[in-house]
Amino acid sequence: VTSQGPCPHRRRRGAALEGAILTAAFAELSEAGYHGFSVESVAARARTGKASIYRRWPSKAALVMDALLAELPDPERLGITSDLGEQVSTADALRAAARAMARVMNSPAGDAIRAVKLEAAADPELARLVEERFQRPRTGALVALLERGVARGEVRPEAATPFVAEVLPAVLTFRIVLQGERLTGAALTRVVDEIMIPLVEARA
Amino acid sequence: VTSQGPCPHRRRRGAALEGAILTAAFAELSEAGYHGFSVESVAARARTGKASIYRRWPSKAALVMDALLAELPDPERLGITSDLGEQVSTADALRAAARAMARVMNSPAGDAIRAVKLEAAADPELARLVEERFQRPRTGALVALLERGVARGEVRPEAATPFVAEVLPAVLTFRIVLQGERLTGAALTRVVDEIMIPLVEARA
Repeated sequence: VTSQGPCPHRRRRGAALEGAILTAAFAELSEAGYHGFSVESVAARARTGKASIYRRWPSKAALVMDALLAELPDPERLGITSDLGEQVSTADALRAAARAMARVMNSPAGDAIRAVKLEAAADPELARLVEERFQRPRTGALVALLERGVARGEVRPEAATPFVAEVLPAVLTFRIVLQGERLTGAALTRVVDEIMIPLVEARA
Repeated sequence: VTSQGPCPHRRRRGAALEGAILTAAFAELSEAGYHGFSVESVAARARTGKASIYRRWPSKAALVMDALLAELPDPERLGITSDLGEQVSTADALRAAARAMARVMNSPAGDAIRAVKLEAAADPELARLVEERFQRPRTGALVALLERGVARGEVRPEAATPFVAEVLPAVLTFRIVLQGERLTGAALTRVVDEIMIPLVEARA
């Protein structure tokens, strides 16, 4: 333990403890909501102490956000990575992105993130974290997808903006959350083919 | 009172009582939410009896829906009536519709209707009433607006559908409700000019 090099045993224990805390925090969030969320209760669920949690996360908002992100696929894994993007058409890339987003929205993590956003309207730190760590990366990945479409000559240059890109999450959220639809593959294809493609495609 | 003709005095009293019940029901809904909504409490607020209410509205869902609709402008007054529509461009008509919808969404009635929709996911009768009496007329008015655009040669015929029309409420709802924006006139104009018009416009 006096070695200055990395200590795999201790690091592994730290990562395992962090994982247990994040899992416990997501369970607490799903059951108690954001307002009812108690760091003390997370500590009990993870069989650790509050000090261990506050050493890693400075606030309830930071812990909740990490717990949410741990449940979500990384934007890089949304089927819209640049590696995939170079090889597929804009329409196919948008369809893959729509499927990936709908999967998240239909999952417990999607329910939790919406609940947090609605419940925490009065919590500016959490609102900023949701914006910076969840929404901005998602929108950024969609804009990058549209920019690749511009380079392929498939997308109007003026359409490769966050404002236009957000139509996709807006329509999916509206249909899934407010209309209560369970979006099928066919419905997602329709969203892309009848809305996103006509909206962004290069004009003759 | 034995006259078989209309009795203006009694009718006026009936209309006044109905108005008082609807106002009381909207206040009860705003304070107690849909789950906490009590017809007994509405009767007390309106200084009438439960029987007077149930004589007019067969269920809590029907009363709540009428109370909501009484607070909302009629779709005919959304700035998208056919009279107006014949004379203005599709872009101007969409801008007027966006402003009218944003006004409703930013109002207490808009808050109440969203709360009812989210709270009452488990109430099929209410879900059906919201769909039939609120969403379908709004979407219908937007489709009619787009159809007038088709007749003017401004809109692609394939875009005059409920599926495409609902992009406007979807984007406004997403930005207002989930992002917490207060949409200004300039932002509404951007939604129309950068999203709705490129989406629906007739192609060269």
